[in-house]
Amino acid sequence: MSRLDIERGVVEMAHGSGGRASAQLIESLFIRHLDNAWLRQGDDASLFDVGAGRMVMSTDAHVVSPLFFPGGDIGSLSVHGTINDVAMSGARPLYLSAGFVLEEGFPLAGLDRIVASMARASREADVPVIAGDTKVVERGKGDGVFITTTGIGVVPEGVHISGDRAEAGDMILISGHIGDHGTAILSSREGLEFATAIRSDSAALHELVAEMVNVAPEIHCLRDPTRGGLATTLNELVRQSGVGMQIEEGAIPVRAEVRGACELLGLDPLYIANEGKLICICPAGVAEKVLSVMQAHPLGRDAAIIGKVVEDERQLVTMKTVFGGLRVVDWLAGEQLPRIC
Amino acid sequence: MSRLDIERGVVEMAHGSGGRASAQLIESLFIRHLDNAWLRQGDDASLFDVGAGRMVMSTDAHVVSPLFFPGGDIGSLSVHGTINDVAMSGARPLYLSAGFVLEEGFPLAGLDRIVASMARASREADVPVIAGDTKVVERGKGDGVFITTTGIGVVPEGVHISGDRAEAGDMILISGHIGDHGTAILSSREGLEFATAIRSDSAALHELVAEMVNVAPEIHCLRDPTRGGLATTLNELVRQSGVGMQIEEGAIPVRAEVRGACELLGLDPLYIANEGKLICICPAGVAEKVLSVMQAHPLGRDAAIIGKVVEDERQLVTMKTVFGGLRVVDWLAGEQLPRIC
Repeated sequence: MSRLDIERGVVEMAHGSGGRASAQLIESLFIRHLDNAWLRQGDDASLFDVGAGRMVMSTDAHVVSPLFFPGGDIGSLSVHGTINDVAMSGARPLYLSAGFVLEEGFPLAGLDRIVASMARASREADVPVIAGDTKVVERGKGDGVFITTTGIGVVPEGVHISGDRAEAGDMILISGHIGDHGTAILSSREGLEFATAIRSDSAALHELVAEMVNVAPEIHCLRDPTRGGLATTLNELVRQSGVGMQIEEGAIPVRAEVRGACELLGLDPLYIANEGKLICICPAGVAEKVLSVMQAHPLGRDAAIIGKVVEDERQLVTMKTVFGGLRVVDWLAGEQLPRIC
Repeated sequence: MSRLDIERGVVEMAHGSGGRASAQLIESLFIRHLDNAWLRQGDDASLFDVGAGRMVMSTDAHVVSPLFFPGGDIGSLSVHGTINDVAMSGARPLYLSAGFVLEEGFPLAGLDRIVASMARASREADVPVIAGDTKVVERGKGDGVFITTTGIGVVPEGVHISGDRAEAGDMILISGHIGDHGTAILSSREGLEFATAIRSDSAALHELVAEMVNVAPEIHCLRDPTRGGLATTLNELVRQSGVGMQIEEGAIPVRAEVRGACELLGLDPLYIANEGKLICICPAGVAEKVLSVMQAHPLGRDAAIIGKVVEDERQLVTMKTVFGGLRVVDWLAGEQLPRIC
């Protein structure tokens, strides 16, 4: 089979045909980067062994725009995003699959960069991509590259983490600064010079989670505040658990640059997507222990306790502002930042 | 939360925001149709129990155009396609996930019809969709609906089916008429009146496979000849196994309408996608037994033995034509029918 011209070539409709051109793209580009024993099986489904137990499955479609942004790209994001969704059940992620929808005319050099980044993220996280599929759509019927990743993982014995387990008296922790990802995307989209210092926080959180559930298997809820941000995610948990929450604005870590960019753009960091942060809700008795483990991990260095779960039939999230007032923190209404992940 | 106007509404960017509008779309449309205990968990990852053993994972991105075609739509196709990829390892499919990329402005009534069809296919196959995600892209950056489904399954003890296991002397079986799916899509795309009788063969083959591996756990290869058709799939198997194949044109079932449409359109049924057919390669000693089981199943009624595996260092698929000649059946080169699945 002739070589693919990755430097100058573009995605062609034939790359989605299932014939020789598809096989060439898969071998010369996808398998070259993502190479592992499962993909080399070359079958339509990839085989692996599991022990008996509880597993989880999660999927995420990624349509982020632009494809490359400060701190990451759609390739690394699609690995981190799904690893995190699996990890938020307390599970150890085992394997990923990836489905690509490519637009005709997209430069192969760009695709190569994206798949290389995906492979790097997958190796660093030690979670291989074991199954994949590629389709091509006509120019103007897609937008470069969309990637849907699916992950499966295994939940350790004794761990029961779910969004409906928050209880009055529990403490609410966040693993670090909020708003970095969304602000980085927006500033790169708008070409804002002042904001170039802001990088996406895109990262795989499963090792941090493993250390947390190791010291505190009684953690009640974990969730990564992606689309809709911290505010929307807390509202989801409040609804699932049938409780209320009280948070303290002053306790929520926000970088000065992010706060500045948000003020200028009329955005609220509470509603901005994060891709490398988690919310943890746990019994008050273990909160300090969990916080210490988080702060000792590079991805939780700036972790903080930001509030507590309360009884509230109205199921509200309320926030004590830095000026001492009290405000209701509602769900994100409408659209704040489209195509953030 | 106010109701979604499914009858007159369209997909809006806010439906992809992760906020209130997203939650509304998920509850009023996706969960309404696909409702099950896993989706109702409402967490980012869905939990299930497994026994120890061998599992498989497979993924497929679906970009078929048009979205609705005789015999199916993108919803049912995305369920059948991934169930089949899982089943082709001999596995019993357990669960599916689905990632949607929606285009702004797409009618909610169309989305509702697609998700209802997906739910029906999933119920009929008894393989639930336990995890999902929805993203929205701007008008002109997508094409209505793309669906990436991922499936996992469990491989029965004693079954070792893989594309690299074909051996000289094995027989090659096909489960029925080839070319129906691709011809149905093309005729509906082109508005060909003469071809309206041709319907896609889109179907879930896992129950047929279960009966086949039950009587003959020694089956060597199974594969569904989708993109690239029978010809390309046989070439994939020849390359994986390092063998040759000899098939008989006269033995390959092709409906008269499909043959007629292909002649008119200058297409070769051997290269046309199928979505409800499988190729089985098994030791000659069990071929008749496997054939009987296939013919006794509604989805294998027209099954036939179409050739045999031979030693061939050149790794060629050759075909004895109905006129007695011999022709090499090569991979699909270039693009025959874009966006067929």
